[in-house]
Amino acid sequence: MLRDNERLDCLLKENLEIIQNDEVFSFSTDALLLGHFTHLRKNDKVMDLCSGNGVIPLLLSYKGQQPIDAIEIQPQLVDMAKRSILHNHLTDRIHMYEMDLKEVRQNFTPSQYTVVTCNPPYFKTTQMHQHQKEAHKIARHEVLCTLEDCVEAARHLLKQGGRLMMVHRAERLMDVLSAYRAARIEPKRLTLVYSKQNKDAHAIIVEGRKDGKAGLEIQPPFYMYQGHGEYTPEMRAIYYGD
Amino acid sequence: MLRDNERLDCLLKENLEIIQNDEVFSFSTDALLLGHFTHLRKNDKVMDLCSGNGVIPLLLSYKGQQPIDAIEIQPQLVDMAKRSILHNHLTDRIHMYEMDLKEVRQNFTPSQYTVVTCNPPYFKTTQMHQHQKEAHKIARHEVLCTLEDCVEAARHLLKQGGRLMMVHRAERLMDVLSAYRAARIEPKRLTLVYSKQNKDAHAIIVEGRKDGKAGLEIQPPFYMYQGHGEYTPEMRAIYYGD
Repeated sequence: MLRDNERLDCLLKENLEIIQNDEVFSFSTDALLLGHFTHLRKNDKVMDLCSGNGVIPLLLSYKGQQPIDAIEIQPQLVDMAKRSILHNHLTDRIHMYEMDLKEVRQNFTPSQYTVVTCNPPYFKTTQMHQHQKEAHKIARHEVLCTLEDCVEAARHLLKQGGRLMMVHRAERLMDVLSAYRAARIEPKRLTLVYSKQNKDAHAIIVEGRKDGKAGLEIQPPFYMYQGHGEYTPEMRAIYYGD
Repeated sequence: MLRDNERLDCLLKENLEIIQNDEVFSFSTDALLLGHFTHLRKNDKVMDLCSGNGVIPLLLSYKGQQPIDAIEIQPQLVDMAKRSILHNHLTDRIHMYEMDLKEVRQNFTPSQYTVVTCNPPYFKTTQMHQHQKEAHKIARHEVLCTLEDCVEAARHLLKQGGRLMMVHRAERLMDVLSAYRAARIEPKRLTLVYSKQNKDAHAIIVEGRKDGKAGLEIQPPFYMYQGHGEYTPEMRAIYYGD
């Protein structure tokens, strides 16, 4: 089941396994956070954009019986994701599409989903280093899709009132909020993730609602580490479920 | 020196006194926070918009010898502020203008100030209650000026690279950031104020830079209360300087 350089990692709380490959893609803590902060309701239908090796669909599969679709542009990652889904016996619930999310209009009828999740490439292409591997460049930099492309795709896919959940770098809060509003996905809830006390925020989780009313809740801050670098209880709960 | 219904309150840390009148205007904790988070450099020249009874200029006067101007539209508040300034022997440093900030273009040459502070009316006029006193309505609701008017006035007044410091309600973060960017005052630093642990944020302090580059620092969260409702050490420091 594993190809060259691949390994099987555990999603401990979910009791699932996921194929990773550091040469190509392995998920970050931010993906765990996005999974954690995405609450699902019984009748939700979920689409995950920029799905990578399918970590978000796997994490969300643990939360209920909702159908989960996912789009990823890189064939090698789609292949890894599909093998992980098969390995975890989730082929009836999670469907991966190898697709450019800029083409969702041509490929999906509008307004089908109640939840869209997205852990997009974080960096502008101007911040790209030449020596990076191509797969890393695509996953981390806005080479093949920009923030605006992601939000536009989400707008097409979401039903009215549907939710877009995105994790991003804290320094791009401005861009994320602007992109949401430009696509009439009103930011409704914001969580700031701090790596530890007395440091600037590290990541943001932004929940928006398609055609929602203005008014933003800023949630209590979320800390990842405490003291001398051990996980906070909240972070342990995300990793280990305890 | 005091007129009907007025009292003299202490700004303890600053060792200053300020005229207040609950029938008309008394400053809120948010004003103290704005004063606290506004750092001044030696050569700064400051303008305070929506100055009310002049609390921000008084707080900032304690930080150095910078000249501080201020604009307030309500004559009764200007009168209170002027008497407070006189009482504290600060007439050579603080100048209050009775003026509509929508008229700064006609009254001030552009790009004179390095810092503009603003504690604007927080609420939309649609949230206004008929039974409120007129002075309270004007101070708290966007009756005579909107958020956008404040930010536009700041843009006119600020030098390139100059800073706008604003305190606002957390739920209007979206509007504040959008207004800043629309006026090309790039949000550079954001502080979220929580009244206590495990509650949503209460207020925001947004620092923007005129014609600045994109990139936002989200500062560590600021808590006002702890335990059973006593001030946090940070909040005590703002009030009492200890």
